[in-house]
Amino acid sequence: MADEAAFQFLHNEVIQYIYKSAESGETENGRHIAKLENMGFRVGQGLIERLTKDTARFKDELDIMKFVCKDFWTCVFKKQIDNLRTNHQGIYVLQDNKFRLLSQLSAGKQYLEHAPKYLSFSCGLVRGALSSLGVKSIVTAEVSIMPACKFQIMIQKM
Amino acid sequence: MADEAAFQFLHNEVIQYIYKSAESGETENGRHIAKLENMGFRVGQGLIERLTKDTARFKDELDIMKFVCKDFWTCVFKKQIDNLRTNHQGIYVLQDNKFRLLSQLSAGKQYLEHAPKYLSFSCGLVRGALSSLGVKSIVTAEVSIMPACKFQIMIQKM
Repeated sequence: MADEAAFQFLHNEVIQYIYKSAESGETENGRHIAKLENMGFRVGQGLIERLTKDTARFKDELDIMKFVCKDFWTCVFKKQIDNLRTNHQGIYVLQDNKFRLLSQLSAGKQYLEHAPKYLSFSCGLVRGALSSLGVKSIVTAEVSIMPACKFQIMIQKM
Repeated sequence: MADEAAFQFLHNEVIQYIYKSAESGETENGRHIAKLENMGFRVGQGLIERLTKDTARFKDELDIMKFVCKDFWTCVFKKQIDNLRTNHQGIYVLQDNKFRLLSQLSAGKQYLEHAPKYLSFSCGLVRGALSSLGVKSIVTAEVSIMPACKFQIMIQKM
């Protein structure tokens, strides 16, 4: 457990740092979220390049999604995505029933409002990974019951 | 290899973020280094608390250092410290012959000047870990040949 904690603790520090380094407020919060998302994007790009350097070419979009749900997710979060759904028209929903970066927060409702801070890096991570594989997307996340979490991916046709 | 890369990539992003978010200059550089060191300090505190929660009490300072060189280092950097020396008067030198956070930089001399950026987080990491174990210290690092690196710990007697 402690073995993988370095990433997790560093992730928490980054959030705190970004939020502390500037004023608070509606617009500021949006900018912090964007910064975290951007960091995630670049980390995702780097990681997927390293992960896929010896893999065969992907068959299609769904094949890419499966790789993200299995290999990529395991690499970063030490478990696979629990459920992958798609409408076969460019929308994918990835559900993680015990999302690692939320599992440190209390499961009660009182911290639900802080969840977006803890998800935007990971949204960027997915967007970055897909982008490096040639798939342009918009990634959002939602939490209804902690620490379960859903990532929705909307593919942007080019 | 890729399995542990999330921490490494995120670490790189943090450095870039901190350096990009402000002006450059002598004093600014000092502040960035301090920020990275501080982040490392808190990550180190968190990690060591988790790592030592089931370990027996340490015999003495040297015992603590050995734990840092073995268990703590392996947890964060996936290898042990290669060499630990001490003058038995409060100074310890930890040598890592292939320091993980430098191994992505070219081994040439041209990047030697950038090394401090990549070491200050880890100096803080060690200082934070020791601090949580009740040992107050000053930690500095030096690189002579990349990616080998020496951390010097000066214990502050309280």
